[in-house]
Amino acid sequence: MMLDTTMIIPTFEDMLAAHERIKPHIHRTPILTSSYFNDLIGAEIFFKCENFQKAGAFKVRGASNAVFGLSEEDAKKGVCTHSSGNHALSLSYAAGRRGIPCNVVMPRTAPQAKKDAVKGYGGIITECEPSTTSREAVFADVQAATGGNFVHPYNDPRVIAGQGTCSRELMEQTDGVDIVVAPIGGGGMISGTCLTLSNIAPETQIIAAEPEQADDAYRSFKAGHIIADDAPHTIADGLKVPLKDLTWHFVSNHVTDILTASEDEIIDAMKLTWQRMKIVIEASCSVPLAVMLKNKDQFAGKRVGVIITGGNVDLDTLPWIK
Amino acid sequence: MMLDTTMIIPTFEDMLAAHERIKPHIHRTPILTSSYFNDLIGAEIFFKCENFQKAGAFKVRGASNAVFGLSEEDAKKGVCTHSSGNHALSLSYAAGRRGIPCNVVMPRTAPQAKKDAVKGYGGIITECEPSTTSREAVFADVQAATGGNFVHPYNDPRVIAGQGTCSRELMEQTDGVDIVVAPIGGGGMISGTCLTLSNIAPETQIIAAEPEQADDAYRSFKAGHIIADDAPHTIADGLKVPLKDLTWHFVSNHVTDILTASEDEIIDAMKLTWQRMKIVIEASCSVPLAVMLKNKDQFAGKRVGVIITGGNVDLDTLPWIK
Repeated sequence: MMLDTTMIIPTFEDMLAAHERIKPHIHRTPILTSSYFNDLIGAEIFFKCENFQKAGAFKVRGASNAVFGLSEEDAKKGVCTHSSGNHALSLSYAAGRRGIPCNVVMPRTAPQAKKDAVKGYGGIITECEPSTTSREAVFADVQAATGGNFVHPYNDPRVIAGQGTCSRELMEQTDGVDIVVAPIGGGGMISGTCLTLSNIAPETQIIAAEPEQADDAYRSFKAGHIIADDAPHTIADGLKVPLKDLTWHFVSNHVTDILTASEDEIIDAMKLTWQRMKIVIEASCSVPLAVMLKNKDQFAGKRVGVIITGGNVDLDTLPWIK
Repeated sequence: MMLDTTMIIPTFEDMLAAHERIKPHIHRTPILTSSYFNDLIGAEIFFKCENFQKAGAFKVRGASNAVFGLSEEDAKKGVCTHSSGNHALSLSYAAGRRGIPCNVVMPRTAPQAKKDAVKGYGGIITECEPSTTSREAVFADVQAATGGNFVHPYNDPRVIAGQGTCSRELMEQTDGVDIVVAPIGGGGMISGTCLTLSNIAPETQIIAAEPEQADDAYRSFKAGHIIADDAPHTIADGLKVPLKDLTWHFVSNHVTDILTASEDEIIDAMKLTWQRMKIVIEASCSVPLAVMLKNKDQFAGKRVGVIITGGNVDLDTLPWIK
């Protein structure tokens, strides 16, 4: 693939600067361990618990870096984005901390709980129809009307640099691991992980975990170019979006392997984590554990860091309760 | 009330010895904080997360102290108890670590998941009918047949000394608090808390939290003598049992106040904790938060330690999903 030379690839220094910038606004989340899962997989596993992060997900790292990196003048116009998920929450949280407006375009059909949470953080919602056409048209209007700075959920160098701070903390808190496993959707967390580890621990393997039913990153990785699916269906709703040029750059250059898991495997891993570790995690971040459980040989005897990306779950509709 | 002079009241030194004895077998569980709950209640709250404890509950502290305090000769005969809950799990875990038999009498009607978990830790189950008469008869038979050492779920000085290690850690990890709130059922955790705090922080208030529908400790506290209810019904299933002489000694001498919450208040507090803190907690340990939410004035401006006693929940039947 030809590299788009207009892309701004975030650097290791950008990640370090991001970490300093966002520290007052994020938690240095704890690492949890579980002798149960260690025994089950035959590895020493370190869970980096971003479900305990502000706004309930790692996305607040990238969002905060974008918001607090704006000049005073740009900041006045606020920020805007389109997202029905954790990026919407996170950007609203970060903008609220800086006291600037945050406009979010969300599908009319998004869960009321998510809309309420965005509003709770001070975000201003404009609804669109649940289609790409409508979303793009409505978003263009909102951006034109507000002049707000667009912070893309993942294909943004400021966002990737921010997400890279997570694996930096993981490495500091564990004194290093052999493998890092993280879920992959648009690739923001994985790209940040690549950015950081390729600089501080280039020998560490980076394994991305993806739902079988939304395996566009897996197929892209095998094909050597971006393959984008139209509206895949998976319980791991944070992982439906496709790779973009910036995240493809990191994935194609630094990811060791991409492994996939079925819907049932994801749900089983999610429930097992709640049951044994007593933490509430989203389906999206159960995918790493699901792929580890079905590929134990690849992890046996290793020190493995797992990014638990978030804990924003609708507690009224759990996937294992019919 | 006349003190039964045959009782062995555990001492502060017993608690210190217990802590040394059990350290290899328990987690020093983390303290979590939540700016959401701090704002909501107007206090600075420190959650001591015993839901992350071995076997999923604080009860492993007392059980381990009893098991590892046995002489080699006594240990050979193993231990036994009656419990359908966390004490059964915890005693099985501790006995398994020491490699000695653990016989547990459980009602035939106990959830299969609980039975499986006891077996998973190596416990040997003898079933009884779900009545006190049957339980006592079956337990007497089991104890006579095995000669095992009876470790009562709470009315045992070794157990109370073990539970006291939890508030010692809480005080170390927080540099002290003004108030400790813990649920009360039979009174083992509260008694251990009284034992420790009356020695290291006698000015700290100790508030016990109890379901309205199982408020025998509340009524005992007001009446000045033990009142035991017959089979109360509450979602907080760890808190149905009555005070006994040893725990009454601590409750009557050291507890500042007992506050109660309704079933709906307990369920709401439980769900809110899962939602905002991303931790799985039992209904029993939602009672402290429930009483704090309805008595905010009593906690406003204070540093408050809350014992999250356990996280062993049946994930297939959550109380807010009908």
